[in-house]
Amino acid sequence: MKVEFINPFLNATVSVIQTMAQTPVTAGTPALKDGHDSFGEISGIIGLAGEGVSGCMVISFQTEAILPIVSKMLFEEITELNDDITDAVGEITNMISGGAKPELAEVGVCLEMATPITVLGKGIQIRQLSKAPVIQIPFTTAEGKFVVEAALHRQ
Amino acid sequence: MKVEFINPFLNATVSVIQTMAQTPVTAGTPALKDGHDSFGEISGIIGLAGEGVSGCMVISFQTEAILPIVSKMLFEEITELNDDITDAVGEITNMISGGAKPELAEVGVCLEMATPITVLGKGIQIRQLSKAPVIQIPFTTAEGKFVVEAALHRQ
Repeated sequence: MKVEFINPFLNATVSVIQTMAQTPVTAGTPALKDGHDSFGEISGIIGLAGEGVSGCMVISFQTEAILPIVSKMLFEEITELNDDITDAVGEITNMISGGAKPELAEVGVCLEMATPITVLGKGIQIRQLSKAPVIQIPFTTAEGKFVVEAALHRQ
Repeated sequence: MKVEFINPFLNATVSVIQTMAQTPVTAGTPALKDGHDSFGEISGIIGLAGEGVSGCMVISFQTEAILPIVSKMLFEEITELNDDITDAVGEITNMISGGAKPELAEVGVCLEMATPITVLGKGIQIRQLSKAPVIQIPFTTAEGKFVVEAALHRQ
């Protein structure tokens, strides 16, 4: 996957988390995803599809990273991975892909977004069966870490 | 979700499993999905997206249902949930949504398919954050059960 396809996800992630949760975010260096293990206990998944192109984005949070983010979004302290957290992770997933969409269109990749899905659980595998390599971008907040994993494949 | 939107998934599921794995399948009555728990230990997820419509399909298998299905697909006995199983579940997910696509187009729902994702793990939640109700269709083979869960939302 070209850098011009991964930067829109990186930029949208930083923007959405900083704007929605007033939480400074540092992005690390994107790299190929290694193995199939889910990074964190709560993940958002969104399918991306257009004519001649298909893809997917997964965002996966450590518990200690997502609890303060959603607490700040909802102006309410949340201390466990409840339905408020999964709702918010779905919304964050939707907003990041929605933010990446116009930047991807600028480089010729026109995509529509599927319904977001959340996956909650420990010790699970989440695997994108893409013909393109899956790129993982690491992010750090003051409280914890999360990753965004994306792959786009032209048919 | 209208019956005319759920039948294409039901028909494609029966057709794909019977054709790919020579496995007779009985479909039960579609109903609203109750709660967020994943039905089985291995699930396939595929996002569906078009202009003005978004959706998602999840297929989730009991271990005792998927092992004989993939063993028959690969002409090789598989006794655990390994990468062959997740590859096959991704392929089954892709084929079912690909089979439903032309039948959905006939009723005016034109969708492209995202990359399939597989999720492997016990005691997990998989939740579709759709504005439309999520319909669950139960299926039975001689060896076990699986479900297809789908929601389509017109924006």
